[in-house]
Amino acid sequence: MTLFTKTLFTKKSGIVLVLLTASGSLSAAEIANNNITEAEIKAAQDAWGKALIQISDDYRSGGIEKAKTTATAVLDGAYGYNNGPVLFKPTLAGGEQTFRLNQEGALAYFVGNNQAYPADTGFALKNWKSYNYDNAAVYINGDMALTMGKVHLIDRDNKETTVDKTWGFKKGDDGKVRIVLHHSSLPYAG
Amino acid sequence: MTLFTKTLFTKKSGIVLVLLTASGSLSAAEIANNNITEAEIKAAQDAWGKALIQISDDYRSGGIEKAKTTATAVLDGAYGYNNGPVLFKPTLAGGEQTFRLNQEGALAYFVGNNQAYPADTGFALKNWKSYNYDNAAVYINGDMALTMGKVHLIDRDNKETTVDKTWGFKKGDDGKVRIVLHHSSLPYAG
Amino acid sequence: MTLFTKTLFTKKSGIVLVLLTASGSLSAAEIANNNITEAEIKAAQDAWGKALIQISDDYRSGGIEKAKTTATAVLDGAYGYNNGPVLFKPTLAGGEQTFRLNQEGALAYFVGNNQAYPADTGFALKNWKSYNYDNAAVYINGDMALTMGKVHLIDRDNKETTVDKTWGFKKGDDGKVRIVLHHSSLPYAG
Amino acid sequence: MTLFTKTLFTKKSGIVLVLLTASGSLSAAEIANNNITEAEIKAAQDAWGKALIQISDDYRSGGIEKAKTTATAVLDGAYGYNNGPVLFKPTLAGGEQTFRLNQEGALAYFVGNNQAYPADTGFALKNWKSYNYDNAAVYINGDMALTMGKVHLIDRDNKETTVDKTWGFKKGDDGKVRIVLHHSSLPYAG
Repeated sequence: MTLFTKTLFTKKSGIVLVLLTASGSLSAAEIANNNITEAEIKAAQDAWGKALIQISDDYRSGGIEKAKTTATAVLDGAYGYNNGPVLFKPTLAGGEQTFRLNQEGALAYFVGNNQAYPADTGFALKNWKSYNYDNAAVYINGDMALTMGKVHLIDRDNKETTVDKTWGFKKGDDGKVRIVLHHSSLPYAG
Repeated sequence: MTLFTKTLFTKKSGIVLVLLTASGSLSAAEIANNNITEAEIKAAQDAWGKALIQISDDYRSGGIEKAKTTATAVLDGAYGYNNGPVLFKPTLAGGEQTFRLNQEGALAYFVGNNQAYPADTGFALKNWKSYNYDNAAVYINGDMALTMGKVHLIDRDNKETTVDKTWGFKKGDDGKVRIVLHHSSLPYAG
Repeated sequence: MTLFTKTLFTKKSGIVLVLLTASGSLSAAEIANNNITEAEIKAAQDAWGKALIQISDDYRSGGIEKAKTTATAVLDGAYGYNNGPVLFKPTLAGGEQTFRLNQEGALAYFVGNNQAYPADTGFALKNWKSYNYDNAAVYINGDMALTMGKVHLIDRDNKETTVDKTWGFKKGDDGKVRIVLHHSSLPYAG
Repeated sequence: MTLFTKTLFTKKSGIVLVLLTASGSLSAAEIANNNITEAEIKAAQDAWGKALIQISDDYRSGGIEKAKTTATAVLDGAYGYNNGPVLFKPTLAGGEQTFRLNQEGALAYFVGNNQAYPADTGFALKNWKSYNYDNAAVYINGDMALTMGKVHLIDRDNKETTVDKTWGFKKGDDGKVRIVLHHSSLPYAG
């Protein structure tokens, strides 16, 4: 927005011009907005499923090493482990290893093959083919958003797995959205 | 958004239906967003000037008591004094009374007539007629927004007063936007 | 903090005095802090268990009406339903009623006796006697905090129920902390 | 905090042990806190004055190039220009160049010698010797803090300059605190 100048204030037309100026949009250089948007939340949720399927595909085409490389990149980019603990309760994790606060624990969950996590069989290695989700509700607070809903995963045998999933997303200074909370659980059977 | 149901998953068309569902908008009952918006910032800035002129009008029509009543209502509604201190440096305040952290000090500044603030002549009593502003930049962070720019006030003698003004706005749990910071100063003459 | 005055600046000792002033604490009237603290998080977690046991006690002593009255008061005070949806996935809720975004659904879960929620048997009516929790991690972001960990409930027959629980707490303008997210699930059995 | 284990629950002493555990502090690996603290605010305010004096000293010892290098480093480290606009209204800036939203404008203000900013004489070149400040009030909201108060600068001739100053600080993902808002003005003379 250009700065107000005296010449705009000729007695007759000045005020109209000023009002036009005042209602003009600010350019990118003149506005900062650190808040997370619904579009960014959706993009992050879409990316999560796409990444899971990518790890699965890479495992089939390149084995565990390729899957591990991809999973590490996903965790580096999509989760907040590089900034501190992530509150992660994976679907199929229990006992003393229920919570995966650091990246090693998350990687073990997704691709297994870590003796320190003997129960992990590699959730991302299970031949996933497609993914969709249905948010029951979304809560936005500053640079953080919480989502809760059903997530559906379908494998290459068309077997569907549904989980109840809560995500907490945090938008960083770099504008990237990362998962800082992830609670996934099997539906209650009744 | 309606919850996902099994019947959508007929083998052939189910996934398309699910994707449509997932991209649907959430209703008001399913989304919470505590963040302040550009529209809310603009509305609060517009309201500030309108309120100043209203106090001025009420002073002319009803004297100091009417002006005081209006100013009190404005401070109750548009400033955050009921929740704690407001960081307020009025344009024409100096010395040991430069900062008006509580509502009494703010009221004294706007309508004067308070022996505890002998230098205050009542900024809102000065026959204001119109108001406009020009934001140089806006910074949005969660439920808080900061604006900085020029504010122009014109009185009934068409005399214009321009100030450099910074506002800090906070959106409350009730969805209302209140001023929590206000630094106003005369332009540097050079 | 008292304002800096000229008299402090006698050439020899002035600077020392000024430094003392500058390091003084601000009084309550001079500082506002909207952030949630670890102590407030702990108090909210403690209160949740205490409230659950209270509902249980009131059910035994006064029947369903007394339990319902207490549960309603708990939901009004400790959950954020009065400000919008709460992202609530109770432990024993499934199917199309997995998520309880509004207060009616939450009340049905805790005290049952609502024909619209036929699967609900009243989680808070189950003779709870004691409660403790063990946070695996806590994430604090502004006025919001997320906790994830194990929660243990023991009933009057000394039977223990353990759940994996995620809470999202939001501190309001009134300084009160309310639950805006609650995902509870039975441990994965492996 | 160590995870809760069954062995703690021997019938007689278990609950006491659990309560002790639950009241234990979380380690750095188990807690994330993005909020800005009063200590961080004070450190940032102290650093601002120290940096100003450093530029002044470097100008005397090494001329304009050394001053410029130091000032650039200060702006890179202490201001948020690398993330977007900074709402900066320097004390002695007026007219169409009142606001310095980008780093070039801020640098010109502090060290002058920029033909695009002909009125700038270099505020940081003025032989500053000591600095102190007196916060009238502080407002903390998440990772952002606002301060308002008097700032006193004393030059090598013992001449004191006092300004009314508002700062907005933002804590970044890297834990560093940067100025995103800075409104400085000469005291109102009355």
